Amino acid sequence: MPARQHLLDASIVHYEWNNAIPPRLEIDPGDTVVFETRDASDEFYNPNSTHDDVMRRVFKGHPLTGPVRIRGAQPGDVLAVEIIDIAPRASFGWTNVRPGRGLLPESEFSKPFLQIWDVTDGRYARGLRTMRNIAVPLAPFPGVMGVALDDAGSHNTAPPRKNGGNMDIKQLTAGTTVYLPVWVEGALFSIGDAHGAQGDGEVCITAVEMNARITAKFELLPARNLSEPQLRMRGAPARGIDGPHYATTGHGPDLYQCARQAVRHMIEHLVRERGLTREEAYILCSVAVDLKVSEIVDAPNWIVSAFLPEMVFQGK
Amino acid sequence: MPARQHLLDASIVHYEWNNAIPPRLEIDPGDTVVFETRDASDEFYNPNSTHDDVMRRVFKGHPLTGPVRIRGAQPGDVLAVEIIDIAPRASFGWTNVRPGRGLLPESEFSKPFLQIWDVTDGRYARGLRTMRNIAVPLAPFPGVMGVALDDAGSHNTAPPRKNGGNMDIKQLTAGTTVYLPVWVEGALFSIGDAHGAQGDGEVCITAVEMNARITAKFELLPARNLSEPQLRMRGAPARGIDGPHYATTGHGPDLYQCARQAVRHMIEHLVRERGLTREEAYILCSVAVDLKVSEIVDAPNWIVSAFLPEMVFQGK
Repeated sequence: MPARQHLLDASIVHYEWNNAIPPRLEIDPGDTVVFETRDASDEFYNPNSTHDDVMRRVFKGHPLTGPVRIRGAQPGDVLAVEIIDIAPRASFGWTNVRPGRGLLPESEFSKPFLQIWDVTDGRYARGLRTMRNIAVPLAPFPGVMGVALDDAGSHNTAPPRKNGGNMDIKQLTAGTTVYLPVWVEGALFSIGDAHGAQGDGEVCITAVEMNARITAKFELLPARNLSEPQLRMRGAPARGIDGPHYATTGHGPDLYQCARQAVRHMIEHLVRERGLTREEAYILCSVAVDLKVSEIVDAPNWIVSAFLPEMVFQGK
Repeated sequence: MPARQHLLDASIVHYEWNNAIPPRLEIDPGDTVVFETRDASDEFYNPNSTHDDVMRRVFKGHPLTGPVRIRGAQPGDVLAVEIIDIAPRASFGWTNVRPGRGLLPESEFSKPFLQIWDVTDGRYARGLRTMRNIAVPLAPFPGVMGVALDDAGSHNTAPPRKNGGNMDIKQLTAGTTVYLPVWVEGALFSIGDAHGAQGDGEVCITAVEMNARITAKFELLPARNLSEPQLRMRGAPARGIDGPHYATTGHGPDLYQCARQAVRHMIEHLVRERGLTREEAYILCSVAVDLKVSEIVDAPNWIVSAFLPEMVFQGK
């Protein structure tokens, strides 16, 4: 049977991982599916939304398009999902700071902040109203991709797990294949939470969030028995990101605290050297700054580094 | 006074951070220094060294070339050190697995292993005797760079600290400037532990270790009051690294354990798909695989990813 292409629109979504959710679509290995996905706010925000709207938003789980049942998929197999294409399905994206969520505590960020981005040219997320001199290169990917778990019942979509889920791995752009372990018969794949741009770590817990259209091709690798997701990129990470980079570091015995410290230093740097507000700086870290584990073997201190591509200030 | 260029050879080194060590050289801001540095084994290894030699090596601290006193440097200033050039000062580099050291425990790596690399062409570290089909692109940088601490007495060189030190930040290649906070009058800068190539994280605790010649230019930024090192790269990280990448992931509530898990998966992958021994795979992770913090905000699970540039298998 020749490979087919299917379409799943965003008219129906689910907000949990639950292996009892009936599949919306059944496909064969080799098939391609075009998914329309809703942004993480479930279309709560619009381009005129304000900072005050942040606290009005209720998060009931990422809206996911699916599930797709893959014929023949069995526990122990691996589902290879190649991202063929991903593009905004909206004129705007958004990023918000919500006190008490994200890497830095409420004591440091007590005010809600909403950033709206213009993504209409398909190349950059450009600040609207605020951060107007900043243009973050778009490198869209699905924040959430996964298969059903083998534990019955409802599992919230926030944490990543052995089924993939909310991995927020920014390298899952077009041209990348993710290898997901299959936990239930038929795999039951769902996808959503598209990010137009994100730094490694997504520190304020939101990226350039947007509605999207994602084309993915499915293959089945029998009996591969992966225990956690893996991926292969066709090209190098951070293609298209060039020019000078500025980096801060945080050292200490705990990687989480190192990351916090590196991000704090980057925020201070952006406020002092680039004139951003603290909230804008935190948001820029989330959408463009990459956290790297620089040092993890020379006890008692490790280092996490935060790398900022300065091309975001070129206002392209 | 015009800027001058100085030379510090590797005939005298020191093996600790101690602000009582008298400076070997005094320079002005704007001056350049060519440092000859010894490898982390203090020239214990040679190209004919064997696995058995690993346990005979005694580590008494990284041999550091310096200190250099910078006239006018005061606590609260920042010493900007631009790496102008760095090149091997030897025909070979080495990487070793020493049981009980590095990211993975002795229970998983109980045998010592020594990898010798040919670095004579200046472009790649090519496996000698073992890993002969592997060529890791050279991107040399100093593993250790720092200034004296304001605490009196001897401090071992292994952990990175607020003075820099053993940062192992692989992006400190030629063209990068590191900003080091000054803690004592004159700064007292030292450098060593050159790495020909390294992955973010240097997971087996050694990189492509080699003797080197490093040219660095010094500037003083008065009263900047950084609390930890920062850096600026002229270009993008990982320049020259292209083509397909394979990545593994580790998820869970602790970033350190996530990193261990991602590295274990990468080792399994390299053994199964590329036919390396476990020790070779661990070494390849240390010299070429980058650890990224992919997810750090969606409790209870974070993700650390390990990215391998597959160009190392092209045998260039």
